[in-house]
Amino acid sequence: MKLIIGNKNYSSWSLRGWLAVKQSGLHFEEITVPMFGEQWEETKHAVQGTMPSHGKVPILWDGETVVWDSLAILEYCADKVGRDRFWPKDDTARGMARSMVAEMHSSFAALRRECPMNIRKTFEGVTITDDARADTVRVLQLWAEARARFGQGGPFLFGTFSAADVFYAPVVSRFRSYEFKLPGFAEAYMEALWDHEWMQQWIAGAEDEQWVIEQYETTPQG
Amino acid sequence: MKLIIGNKNYSSWSLRGWLAVKQSGLHFEEITVPMFGEQWEETKHAVQGTMPSHGKVPILWDGETVVWDSLAILEYCADKVGRDRFWPKDDTARGMARSMVAEMHSSFAALRRECPMNIRKTFEGVTITDDARADTVRVLQLWAEARARFGQGGPFLFGTFSAADVFYAPVVSRFRSYEFKLPGFAEAYMEALWDHEWMQQWIAGAEDEQWVIEQYETTPQG
Repeated sequence: MKLIIGNKNYSSWSLRGWLAVKQSGLHFEEITVPMFGEQWEETKHAVQGTMPSHGKVPILWDGETVVWDSLAILEYCADKVGRDRFWPKDDTARGMARSMVAEMHSSFAALRRECPMNIRKTFEGVTITDDARADTVRVLQLWAEARARFGQGGPFLFGTFSAADVFYAPVVSRFRSYEFKLPGFAEAYMEALWDHEWMQQWIAGAEDEQWVIEQYETTPQG
Repeated sequence: MKLIIGNKNYSSWSLRGWLAVKQSGLHFEEITVPMFGEQWEETKHAVQGTMPSHGKVPILWDGETVVWDSLAILEYCADKVGRDRFWPKDDTARGMARSMVAEMHSSFAALRRECPMNIRKTFEGVTITDDARADTVRVLQLWAEARARFGQGGPFLFGTFSAADVFYAPVVSRFRSYEFKLPGFAEAYMEALWDHEWMQQWIAGAEDEQWVIEQYETTPQG
């Protein structure tokens, strides 16, 4: 399998797709295409010529199969290696995990717009809008509920590392970069996530990258 | 199981959740809560008191389990009755179906904003923006590819009725209401979808509803 991803420093959806494939335990080749450069346009054309991907990353290529969305990539991998590697076994926990992941997939537009992921950097004194604050409160509410009800088996949202952590990992990076003051349970979860072996690999990759995209180096707040 | 849905005439995400539960073949009780009325606020409070749903429909209640997103509801049902009832068996077809469904779940904002679902009504001479037109072209590209490559076994996107049809059903309703001129293959698919037993049940329900929400009775174009 080949996974096409964008810049590790900036591409939050690439991080999700990459963590999903890591979690599958399957061997894959990683192809990084710096966003918005010449190779980016070429890759988009190559992919769109093969299959109706929308030309965004991440994209998983598995022989003749092309999967072009992070949640679809996760489920496609779960189809191969079994659901239990990604989702809680308990029905109620899994119902909540599935809902949380789907909500992350379609929502939190303000937080995503105002606080773009930038793994290498911290921003001081950023003011966010009420919408982004409401998104943050909602994320914390979900984390609190998952940790309190289903987190006994480990430091992650549902205890052991799951699809929910795959999807909220970029949010952890944002909360760190923008130096949000958060309750202790959230700080503890964020530390566990940040220390995870795969996150550390991804962070090292982001730090080694040479590309800088100016539009993500300042916040929309200036 | 209980499924909480909004107005059948207007709530496109409710239609997706409802079709998903229908497709599971499992027995469920249907609870319709007219959007934005008094009961709507009460239900939101009741649900939010029980579990961290975001107070939107559809919501599936299964004993102690609460699932609050249409895609999560579909997958939760697939967990119960088996993946093959919802997704193509062939890996390549399923990879594409999963990608199409995920893209519908997170994208097509312009089309959704400019052409709200209104099952009972048709609108004449509506002009849409370039963004909504691009969304439409993209949907048609996906439909064409699915039908051509994987649609041999029946009139639906991947032949037999699948998760992809569940997710694109409200788009069919929009294309009908706003009288888009579409290629023959798309018209044929839309007719097959519209004639499906469950769609006909939902349409009859929409026609029987007494509630009218004024904001959805005019288009953003006036």
